[in-house]
Parts: sequence; C-alpha cells; structure tokens
Amino acid sequence: MAHKLEVLPLGGVAEIAEGTDLAAEIVRAARDTVATIGSGDVLVVAQKVVSKAEGRLRPLAGITPSQQAHELARATHKDARLVQAILDESQQVLRSAPGVLITRTHHGLVCANAGVDQSNIPAGDTLCLLPVDPDDSARRLRDTIGELLGHRPAVVISDSFGRAWRIGQADTAIGCAGLEPLDDQRGRVDAQSRELTATIVAVADEAASAASLVRGKATGEAIVLVRGLERFVTTQDGPGAAAIVRPVSEDLFG
Amino acid sequence: MAHKLEVLPLGGVAEIAEGTDLAAEIVRAARDTVATIGSGDVLVVAQKVVSKAEGRLRPLAGITPSQQAHELARATHKDARLVQAILDESQQVLRSAPGVLITRTHHGLVCANAGVDQSNIPAGDTLCLLPVDPDDSARRLRDTIGELLGHRPAVVISDSFGRAWRIGQADTAIGCAGLEPLDDQRGRVDAQSRELTATIVAVADEAASAASLVRGKATGEAIVLVRGLERFVTTQDGPGAAAIVRPVSEDLFG
Repeated sequence: MAHKLEVLPLGGVAEIAEGTDLAAEIVRAARDTVATIGSGDVLVVAQKVVSKAEGRLRPLAGITPSQQAHELARATHKDARLVQAILDESQQVLRSAPGVLITRTHHGLVCANAGVDQSNIPAGDTLCLLPVDPDDSARRLRDTIGELLGHRPAVVISDSFGRAWRIGQADTAIGCAGLEPLDDQRGRVDAQSRELTATIVAVADEAASAASLVRGKATGEAIVLVRGLERFVTTQDGPGAAAIVRPVSEDLFG
Repeated sequence: MAHKLEVLPLGGVAEIAEGTDLAAEIVRAARDTVATIGSGDVLVVAQKVVSKAEGRLRPLAGITPSQQAHELARATHKDARLVQAILDESQQVLRSAPGVLITRTHHGLVCANAGVDQSNIPAGDTLCLLPVDPDDSARRLRDTIGELLGHRPAVVISDSFGRAWRIGQADTAIGCAGLEPLDDQRGRVDAQSRELTATIVAVADEAASAASLVRGKATGEAIVLVRGLERFVTTQDGPGAAAIVRPVSEDLFG
C-alpha cells in the first residue's frame, strides 16, 4: 500500500512569548494556510516556540559558574555561564572539545549543549532551554488543539540534533503525542516472505526531519503540517518520544 | 519563503536483478505514477535495488571466515561467514555485542553490519552488499535517467541506519548526485537578526528520511519522488553524500 506524504509549512505564527496560547496560534496559522487540519494530520512544532511559550528562558546574567563549568568553558571555548546552564540541564557530559559540548540531558537526549540555545531569542543574553517534559508539552498542546478543533491531530515537538559520525543536523522528535514514535516491523515479512528481523522505523524522528525540509530557520516557519501518516496517528497519546531514547544500559557510545 | 514538500512512492518497479536497467525502471515507474518527473525533483532510490542492479550480491557459501571473524561471530551470535563478509566491507570495527556489530565501512559510513543485508534477497543464502561507490552509483543513475528524460532530476541513494543513543532506524543518504547534501546556514541571520552559528542542515539525509515514511519495506516501494527541494537541486552532480561523512579525525565516538 502506497502512502503519499504532504509537508506544509504554516506561516504567520506570531512572535511567541511566555504565556502565549501556542495551541491557538497553531490552529490559526493552520487555518490561514491549509483551511482544515485533519484528525490524521501531524503538527510538527519547533522546540523553540514551545520553550518560549512555556517560559523556558534563562538570563545569562544570573548564572554563577561552578568549578566544573569553568574547566569545561576553558576546554570548549564557551562562556562559563552558558556551560553552567548546560550542566544544569544535563545528567552526564559525554564529550567536550573546542567548540563542542555534548551531554545527556535529564530527559536522556544526547545532543550538543543540552539543547540550550541563544539563537532566535529576542534578548541576546537569554538562553532558551528545552521543555522540562517535551512529551507532556506535546500532550498538552494536543489537548488544547483538540478542544479548539473538535478533533485531535498528532503533535510532534522537534529539535535539530547533530549526529555521531555525520556532518550536519537532522531534526529529531523530542516529544510527541498521538503519533506512534516507532513502527516496529520485526516479525513482518518482506516482499520475498523473509522475516524483517531488525527493522524498527523511527517514524517520529523521520516526520521531524521531513518537516525540517520545509522550514527556513531564518524565516521562522515554526509549525509544519505533515499529512499522510494517518496509519501512525492514534487516539491515545501513546508512549511519546521518550520511547525513542535508548536506555543508558543499552548505550554503546556513552 | 515557504516550501511545500510532496513525497510520492513510485509503485510498480519490477524485481531488480544484476544488469537490470534501473534507470529505465525508475523512469517507467515514475511515469506510471506521477506522469512527469520535473528537473527539480529528487528521486530517492533504496540502496537495495541499486546493489542488486549492480550485482553487489555475495553467496554465503563461498566465504571462509578468518580467526577474527570466528571470534566476532561468537561475540555477536552471528554466522561467521556473514561476519567475514561484514569485515571485508569494513575498515574498522566500532562495537560488538550479542546481536550487534557496528563497523565503519570502506566508504566511512558507520552502521550495523557494514550495511550487509540478507532481507529482500530472493536466495536466502545470498548477502546484499552496499554499492562500492554510492555517489558514483547516483551519478550514473542520474546520467542515464537524464538521457531518458531529457533533463536531470537529482538522485539520492538511501539506506536505513540505526543511530547512537536512539532506538529505531532512520533512512540516510549514502549516495547522491545533483542535490546539495548539506545546507550550510552558518553566517545567515535568524528571524531576530542573530547569527545562526552552528546550523548545517543535512538535506540529503532528511530527504531520505522523508522518503522512508512513504515506503513500506514489506511492499517494496523502492523508488520515492520528493518534490519541493528545487532550491537544493543543482546542475552539477556536486560533492555527493561523501560530504556528509564526518572525517575520522573529527570523530568523537569511534
């Protein structure tokens, strides 16, 4: 069975600040752009606007770096206050090098700078942190969007992550609600009736990556509608993107 | 500027064997499905059909495992002949564990089993190897498709790779021609006129991931057309997916 995919950036989202009703903004932007949001559609929302709406901003000015932060700042050539903010979001430092600080966040996400970011923030001395619980953020967004629409499209919260061994970033799902994050094809048979023994497709990550292709960071299309994944959209919110995080006990590259 | 993306699986590709004119199959399948292939379109072709058409098949029967292969076979619980085939495709073993053998291929790709696969192969005792030079495969496909069409859409050759720290596989570009593999946004400014200092988007990988979402492994849609990436499609074949491979000297997770 063939599935066509459409990926549509939703323009016209206003500047998001703490307390902005992001769900209302998303529904308005979607209506302006595509007229209708189907219950089988997936709304991919950039982490940055979720974090802003949730007030996950931290001024650099109030941060006092620890001894560890000072040492890592020297090793990475980063601002020690920024490094302290990164450490505060992290459970483990995986790698540090000039310009590079890769940690495991409290959510278990492995990424540069614990996802702490200074870009796309109006005040230059303010850091943007990842949501405290991106799956919960996705569930709450889905609930509110559902109330506004009368049906519940899926929600993915995405961020751009670097990858081991590969140059460049690919967008990744850090939260989701109502989308099966993984399509476990183990036990299914292929076109030659051989068992597909090792295939689990990271659907939510691939949806985030697809959305990235229509989103200009510089132009701010924070919301992208992905149509054509109905078979992975569920009534229940499901396990969220936490299900995609490989447990530390199974990690070969920590 | 907003860019809509359409991702269309092309059905009806015949069983591919060594010497099959894959370019002709792709053009025929595309015409049957979407009527026209534009010069700004990207054709994402599953590695498996490229390898088959190139005869990159190896019977298990003729393989004599080395001592190292026997040892790794015990450690990974894999067939020692399969392990030998994997070693023959690899420059370095990164990790081994029960069920797991992660290597760096001669191309520099880090993936499970050096991309050597037994699924979707008619004869069960035959292994499918990655193309010797997937970028060259993409260039040759593009050339032949271009001769058939009179214009030259881009070609991406994709494979499903596992990822460090994350469960599940995401499709990745192992070869490409005519598509900018990386969109280097460093130096551009964001919506708040702050410089985007660290953003290089792995366009070819994200295109491969988008294509994966319309492709059922079990149903064999090996060719996917991605429309909406015209701004990344180039007349020249460009650097290929080799440009996405992080040099070993910069690798933090080897």
